[in-house]
Amino acid sequence: MDNGAAQTKHKQKDAVNGIYGSDGAVGLVFLEKVSHAVDTGDKAFLLKNVAPLHISEQGDLIAALQAEERRGLIVLLGDDFDFSALTEVDEAVRLEIMEALPPKQIADGVQEMESDDAVFLLEDLDDTEQQQILAHLPFKEQAKLRRSLEFPEDSAGRRMQTEFVAVPPFWTIGQVIDYMREDDDLPEHFAQIFVVDPTFRLVGAVDLDRLLRARRPVRVDAIMHDNRYVIPATMDQEEAAQIFEQYDLLSAAVVDANEHLLGVLTIDDVVDVIQEEADEDIRHLGGVGDEELSDSVPEIVRSRAPWLLVNMITSCISASVIGLFGATIEQMVALAMLMPIVASTGGNAATQTMTVTVRALATRTIDIYNAARVIRREVTIGFCNGCMFASMMGLVAGLWFWRVDIGMIIACAMVINMLVAAIAGILVPLLLNRFGADPAIASSVFVTMTTDITGFFSFLGLATWWFHLSP
Amino acid sequence: MDNGAAQTKHKQKDAVNGIYGSDGAVGLVFLEKVSHAVDTGDKAFLLKNVAPLHISEQGDLIAALQAEERRGLIVLLGDDFDFSALTEVDEAVRLEIMEALPPKQIADGVQEMESDDAVFLLEDLDDTEQQQILAHLPFKEQAKLRRSLEFPEDSAGRRMQTEFVAVPPFWTIGQVIDYMREDDDLPEHFAQIFVVDPTFRLVGAVDLDRLLRARRPVRVDAIMHDNRYVIPATMDQEEAAQIFEQYDLLSAAVVDANEHLLGVLTIDDVVDVIQEEADEDIRHLGGVGDEELSDSVPEIVRSRAPWLLVNMITSCISASVIGLFGATIEQMVALAMLMPIVASTGGNAATQTMTVTVRALATRTIDIYNAARVIRREVTIGFCNGCMFASMMGLVAGLWFWRVDIGMIIACAMVINMLVAAIAGILVPLLLNRFGADPAIASSVFVTMTTDITGFFSFLGLATWWFHLSP
Repeated sequence: MDNGAAQTKHKQKDAVNGIYGSDGAVGLVFLEKVSHAVDTGDKAFLLKNVAPLHISEQGDLIAALQAEERRGLIVLLGDDFDFSALTEVDEAVRLEIMEALPPKQIADGVQEMESDDAVFLLEDLDDTEQQQILAHLPFKEQAKLRRSLEFPEDSAGRRMQTEFVAVPPFWTIGQVIDYMREDDDLPEHFAQIFVVDPTFRLVGAVDLDRLLRARRPVRVDAIMHDNRYVIPATMDQEEAAQIFEQYDLLSAAVVDANEHLLGVLTIDDVVDVIQEEADEDIRHLGGVGDEELSDSVPEIVRSRAPWLLVNMITSCISASVIGLFGATIEQMVALAMLMPIVASTGGNAATQTMTVTVRALATRTIDIYNAARVIRREVTIGFCNGCMFASMMGLVAGLWFWRVDIGMIIACAMVINMLVAAIAGILVPLLLNRFGADPAIASSVFVTMTTDITGFFSFLGLATWWFHLSP
Repeated sequence: MDNGAAQTKHKQKDAVNGIYGSDGAVGLVFLEKVSHAVDTGDKAFLLKNVAPLHISEQGDLIAALQAEERRGLIVLLGDDFDFSALTEVDEAVRLEIMEALPPKQIADGVQEMESDDAVFLLEDLDDTEQQQILAHLPFKEQAKLRRSLEFPEDSAGRRMQTEFVAVPPFWTIGQVIDYMREDDDLPEHFAQIFVVDPTFRLVGAVDLDRLLRARRPVRVDAIMHDNRYVIPATMDQEEAAQIFEQYDLLSAAVVDANEHLLGVLTIDDVVDVIQEEADEDIRHLGGVGDEELSDSVPEIVRSRAPWLLVNMITSCISASVIGLFGATIEQMVALAMLMPIVASTGGNAATQTMTVTVRALATRTIDIYNAARVIRREVTIGFCNGCMFASMMGLVAGLWFWRVDIGMIIACAMVINMLVAAIAGILVPLLLNRFGADPAIASSVFVTMTTDITGFFSFLGLATWWFHLSP
């Protein structure tokens, strides 16, 4: 982000409200005032300055406070604390807070929340804690939350909101509008209403703008559209997000196996899913698992170690390739200097191809129509860049050691490695994907191993042939 | 994605319609039928089977066709082709189609589109082509599009839709509803209406669900909310997306410097922006620029070469570090085998830290409150993993070459390199960000150079000291 943009952002933030400082983080002055209010039990200050904030701002504030102050703030605010704010902080911070609060207070908070946020809050707790909190809820709420929690993790059923407006198809627009004016139990926000039959089977939906443009005597079933884009509750949230994206949906009905309406999935949840999935790809490509900034050191050490281990094993394999040519290296140390260059340039070219392929797989822009073309293209690119950089490096190496043969050897090795890099960079992720593995996780290690081994083998092999075996 | 999920997806797709095959790509049978219809000029088939598809499906279909067939399809469909479908294909495919069609046909298509899609279609064309197309439009449309196109690339003004509903504050809800029932010129979809004063300055907004719940005699200004989250037209789209995300907005007013209402930015555009930005981070981390799958080979060779060049230069620097220790390597070839292991393990650990830092910067979860803590944490993690892998590798190397000293030397070098890796992995992106550079683009190269040089230097340096200089 350039500086101009950063400035606009902060101006905007300042205009919105005063909690953020000029660097985009929660302002120090405000933070100290809140700390002080929590320490001295100044509830009036918190009610006036913290309670009216947007939940995402409250989340940022909670994250910036010390651990004891977080609990203090929530206990002091009591009924005036909106537990939805906890959906905006890191999992580790959230769990720490939830485990410290009495189940009764959490249950009271949960009752005020929309069901999707409540499930989000409860799903990471262990079973006993979940049960303790659920036990404090009225039966109807309990049943709804339990049903959502029974769906698999990361499914649409977990993310759906169970508050929605559903009307029979024979109602008129007038009846619908009157019903909405009278009923106090409507969801806080909604963009469409659903049309259901007496068994609650979904028959259609009406967008609010459509509803507003229709005349009062018109029947609902005359203006409803059939629900082409219905999400089964067991569908993975990533799939659901892709349907939202492809068809530009704002909300969609979530149904059970018998097409009964269970809830509604909204675009704001989907935006979070899209962010999460992209984040996951980036972290996997970088060899990092599901860690968060607030995780503890031992957790992170454990989560990063497997990747480092695999990498160490593959580099031992590459090292043993070097060992094959020990005699040649002993005679000419220049080879030991140059061999990492061949390996590393190939590794880079392969990473480029791999990145493009992994993203193409994630966004489904690679398919049977273009796979062959993409492979041909990548190999051509590898060959072109290979020739270009090989001649450059050949010249540099030739001049560096003042020997034509070394320049020729490194140039040939580089062309070979760049070609292999292109092929590995595309085939490894494609094959991993074909066999059901996540290409973002495992591609890097196989691809780098391939280019390291090829780099060392081709360069040292050519050198050995030239110096020892050639006539 | 696991197989179960994939199956659900395809079932869903099949349920939606028949254009996709079981692998999620456009079905071969359908594609052949369309090809045949285009070749034989069978307009009736296309009207029946292609025109009713969702624009994103038409986009997928167009991308799967041969270049000549794409133009043929559009020309055959004529007025029944929805040009919005072109917003769903790669830039290269879109430009190729746009350049082949007569400006008049494009202008006719543009007139039917929502303004944000029209701008998206026109913005990549060169100036002459833009003017030719705009000249065929009625004056009012032309003025609107020209104004949007004058905003900087990637700004909110480019992405906004200029169709919206605006009413004066003194109208009653009844008047608003009657106005919407009568006016045919409303935008196709909208989630809120705006309230403006006689000079079109924005004074507030009303969500449709709010409107529906209010009674007819109530005045608009009694139920409107003030527009806290207003987007200046010049704001970068990435900033705007962050505001949408933080405050869970569905749409927001776009205003000029004097707070006059210019248009509306909607969540579906923002979803695309979020995807693009995450994609950009992934590509930059992988050393790839703004290429698309449909770009030509020379374009891609050009775009990938700079990164490879920078990498080659840095690996020459690392190579010269190895050169300093030529005499030691000559004596003991084992060092040449082991040195890449030290460098590569460090490189991996640094990439992990760097990935976490780059994402934390992108999502603004790293700030002055936790920067010091995060640095301390990463160094501790580096030290722990360093000790663990150093003892493992020390043991392996000691047994491999049956020499205790080699095991000790590689272990010490690895601890040093893992510590440096942790520090470089976090400081390099933080510093690049501080000085206004995009940490995703440049971090990798600096970080890898640091761990390569440290790895070679510490390992070969320790070995030289031990074998030559120690008493």
